[in-house]
Amino acid sequence: MFDKITVIAPGLLGASICKAARKRSLARQIAVWARRTEAREALLQQDWVDSAPTEIEESCSGSDLVILCAPVKRIIEIAERIAPHLDSNPIVTDVGSVKSALSRACAAALEGKARFVGSHPMAGSEKTGMENAAADLFENRACFVTPFPNADADALKSVSDFWGALGSSVIEKSPEEHDAIVANVSHLPHLIASAIATHLAHSYPDSNRYCGNGLRDTTRIAAGDPTLWREIISQNRDEILRALASFEDELHALRSSIANEDEFEILKRLADGKSFREGLDA
Amino acid sequence: MFDKITVIAPGLLGASICKAARKRSLARQIAVWARRTEAREALLQQDWVDSAPTEIEESCSGSDLVILCAPVKRIIEIAERIAPHLDSNPIVTDVGSVKSALSRACAAALEGKARFVGSHPMAGSEKTGMENAAADLFENRACFVTPFPNADADALKSVSDFWGALGSSVIEKSPEEHDAIVANVSHLPHLIASAIATHLAHSYPDSNRYCGNGLRDTTRIAAGDPTLWREIISQNRDEILRALASFEDELHALRSSIANEDEFEILKRLADGKSFREGLDA
Repeated sequence: MFDKITVIAPGLLGASICKAARKRSLARQIAVWARRTEAREALLQQDWVDSAPTEIEESCSGSDLVILCAPVKRIIEIAERIAPHLDSNPIVTDVGSVKSALSRACAAALEGKARFVGSHPMAGSEKTGMENAAADLFENRACFVTPFPNADADALKSVSDFWGALGSSVIEKSPEEHDAIVANVSHLPHLIASAIATHLAHSYPDSNRYCGNGLRDTTRIAAGDPTLWREIISQNRDEILRALASFEDELHALRSSIANEDEFEILKRLADGKSFREGLDA
Repeated sequence: MFDKITVIAPGLLGASICKAARKRSLARQIAVWARRTEAREALLQQDWVDSAPTEIEESCSGSDLVILCAPVKRIIEIAERIAPHLDSNPIVTDVGSVKSALSRACAAALEGKARFVGSHPMAGSEKTGMENAAADLFENRACFVTPFPNADADALKSVSDFWGALGSSVIEKSPEEHDAIVANVSHLPHLIASAIATHLAHSYPDSNRYCGNGLRDTTRIAAGDPTLWREIISQNRDEILRALASFEDELHALRSSIANEDEFEILKRLADGKSFREGLDA
């Protein structure tokens, strides 16, 4: 159990972390910091918040674990802002969905003041905001923990144990490996879902009349926040472009097999896809 | 209410039609025909089946509405097989997910013996088989009814009313219009889901470790039956190839905007996708 954890900028993820940590008694004290006065006042009404100081420095003072939950771009600014004031050599982690550039910047900003180990809980949703937070958000979800080779071993263990205690299945990868993986398993499906949606918006704007569950499922994540996703794309551009090019090759090969009426190849591809998909639920 | 309806080859859709028709008292008598002896015996145990004769001709005798529920390819064979024996000038419809070639063949086979009007209830699932049948399968789902211009007006009305009575929202389109629409809103998402799955099966075979809800949703329909989908592709090849080419253009444009760091264009595309997706649930 931590004496004090601090959650900076709680939205869906940060508030869910607080709720889950309280429910599972992982911290004696939960401090939060939000930029807006109304948000801090609302937070103080929650039984999963012990303090919500006006000053970000105060929220971090004496903390064992500081969790940065802002959008990717602001995480670095926050790390730079709190660094000079940290007084307890805390462990610092974040929930950013892209890790390479972000982790380098955070580790540099916090050097000598805190022990940084990045995290990425795969628990997003097209729903955002504190009002959708849930104590079980992390249960049975993957959570990446992405140390650099020189990361503090105790900090790494504490961060991994923390996510494990929230119910997540922890996967340790380098920040670079992480970014290549999520470009393929997360960012690529998002961009494809969005492209299906824009394709249909042009060609069949009345698709909602014809919409079955297949189309609903396949495009669900296209409803995600465009600003947030533009930022993710900008942070992980190179890996995303590689993943897109590789997917386009795959789709082109499928189209060729259809155009060539290569029934064996079509069946093999569909069967491989089915087998992979069934593995995701196994 | 019909005096007698006949459901040929009940799988998920056919058995759900029987259940729904019984629950909503749409037919005094429900006859079914299945090829396998064990299937007929199992059907006779169900309270939504009144008769399950060995001979397909007997199941259709005196029927008002015959619904052909076999896979697309077999529907035509069945129409040809029953035609000479139809004794009540029944309305005949089917549930095939591709309509153009199929409807022409069925209408020709049944000419003078029955009044054919094709249907396509958009109520499939990656789950198949009678054991997954449900009386509410068609509720709040779209159902295409696809008459040729010379279709019998009473038959068209009866078929439309029947699906409406099962809870579906009926959309009347020509068989050709139908095939272009489903190539885009149904077959395209399926093929893309499958291509994402095969892409990841090659590049990240351990994706199930990293899998979030986004990837799960986006690829869910890739678990559909490959044989059934190969057949759909073969029946609707030209429209599918057109839809795929158009989607590839869309995806390519998205990739270019990312490669060019055109932040405005990226944001616009993501916002258009979000807006379209939200419209699907409206």
